[in-house]
Amino acid sequence: MQPLELYRDRDHACLMFTDLIEEDGQTVQANQFLIVDGDTGAIIDPGGTLAFNELFMAMGRHFAPQRLSYLIASHADPDIIASLDRWLTSTNAQLVISRIWERFVPHFTKAGKTEGRIIGVPDGGGHLPLGRHELVLLPAHFMHSEGNFHFYDPVSRILFTGDLGVSMTSGAQARVPVTDFAAHVPLMEGFHRRYMVSNKILRLWTRMARQLDVAMIVPQHGAPIMGQPAIQEFYNWLDELKCGVDLFDERAYQLPTALIDPVTRQTRQP
Amino acid sequence: MQPLELYRDRDHACLMFTDLIEEDGQTVQANQFLIVDGDTGAIIDPGGTLAFNELFMAMGRHFAPQRLSYLIASHADPDIIASLDRWLTSTNAQLVISRIWERFVPHFTKAGKTEGRIIGVPDGGGHLPLGRHELVLLPAHFMHSEGNFHFYDPVSRILFTGDLGVSMTSGAQARVPVTDFAAHVPLMEGFHRRYMVSNKILRLWTRMARQLDVAMIVPQHGAPIMGQPAIQEFYNWLDELKCGVDLFDERAYQLPTALIDPVTRQTRQP
Repeated sequence: MQPLELYRDRDHACLMFTDLIEEDGQTVQANQFLIVDGDTGAIIDPGGTLAFNELFMAMGRHFAPQRLSYLIASHADPDIIASLDRWLTSTNAQLVISRIWERFVPHFTKAGKTEGRIIGVPDGGGHLPLGRHELVLLPAHFMHSEGNFHFYDPVSRILFTGDLGVSMTSGAQARVPVTDFAAHVPLMEGFHRRYMVSNKILRLWTRMARQLDVAMIVPQHGAPIMGQPAIQEFYNWLDELKCGVDLFDERAYQLPTALIDPVTRQTRQP
Repeated sequence: MQPLELYRDRDHACLMFTDLIEEDGQTVQANQFLIVDGDTGAIIDPGGTLAFNELFMAMGRHFAPQRLSYLIASHADPDIIASLDRWLTSTNAQLVISRIWERFVPHFTKAGKTEGRIIGVPDGGGHLPLGRHELVLLPAHFMHSEGNFHFYDPVSRILFTGDLGVSMTSGAQARVPVTDFAAHVPLMEGFHRRYMVSNKILRLWTRMARQLDVAMIVPQHGAPIMGQPAIQEFYNWLDELKCGVDLFDERAYQLPTALIDPVTRQTRQP
């Protein structure tokens, strides 16, 4: 399918790929993004081995891979950047990722492959030039990864939020921006309670995000959240959400009694 | 170099590989483990692409790869399991990993590769048969990963703790078990403050771990912590350690002003 055009003007485009991975029930759906400004381009959260061939070919219809400047990774999970070795071989792009993952991502690649190719971003984030404009790398640590960034594009006013705002959908559903936030919550809630780390952090983040002029919040799984009413409701929902370490107590850290059966791959109480 | 023999009796052995990755300053040192019980074997935290060839060959001197039963992953980071595709091709082993990463790890592999090969462990953990004995999969969520397990071997009384207890060392230093805990703290402190998530969780974990008879705590980076005095000091240190979300406040979530220079790869204030 064609990528979803999140934004386009004469010089600037944001494209979203939602269905590059076969929907086999075993693999979580994931979005990848191409941002082009003039003759400069960046991929945000390029994805895993599964997505590489499809994304490389699909991208080529919109932008010449050899001109790609950056691979920008919100964090270091496999669905974000397990394709790193292939991208470093096939393009001249630099990897932009949290400084705290800088010495971990070479484990994705063959020896020496990342040398001189990683921009390690300090915890405070920063402004990354892209063509005649820039992307703003916003601190999003512990949402969920310890070293985590979101990406704000001031031209399109899109905030790319990685695992924050994620919904569990098909690739086709991910193409339909959400404006009715309340109806969308059931697709988000389970993921955010388990994979986000702490309500304290969510509140620190919404306090920062509310200072930005945001037209659309675009996560790495599932559908964008579009328009002021839905975006404000999303911020309010995060402010009240207990998650991660808020919900784990001594019941979660007990010596186990369950037996794991390697044949059925099921766990049962004895 | 030969692997370090953490334990061996007639039927049971625990081997630790500390120096399979070239020390180029770009990549964090990492340990991999082979546990053999009779004619059954498991690899714990097999590592990334960099480690695969070396570990596969080194392991072959001690255990036939085609008889390997499990690849056991404490969590889904690249230094833990980015070699997954190669291991699934080269052995018949099943991957044992947190259920919350079950649909993410297929992004490490080619399509369909993980089908019927993943044992997704529920949050409570469990007992996994290994030869005539078993490994105990202990809940270690948020230390650091949201879905995280440690592995207790009742035969050797070794507790394999993944990223908990990590020290930043060379592969040679990682071979020398630590008994003077106070002298070891400077190699551990920075990592634990930034990559561990919350003191609340550390305390829940020590409360559980103190119920086990542990001879040695063996992390995935750096040196083992050996003997009761050092192990008790380690638990006490964790009980008092503020980390992760304890230390992040509104200063950490500000709209950035810094400029990232893609040529020097440095960030500077404007």
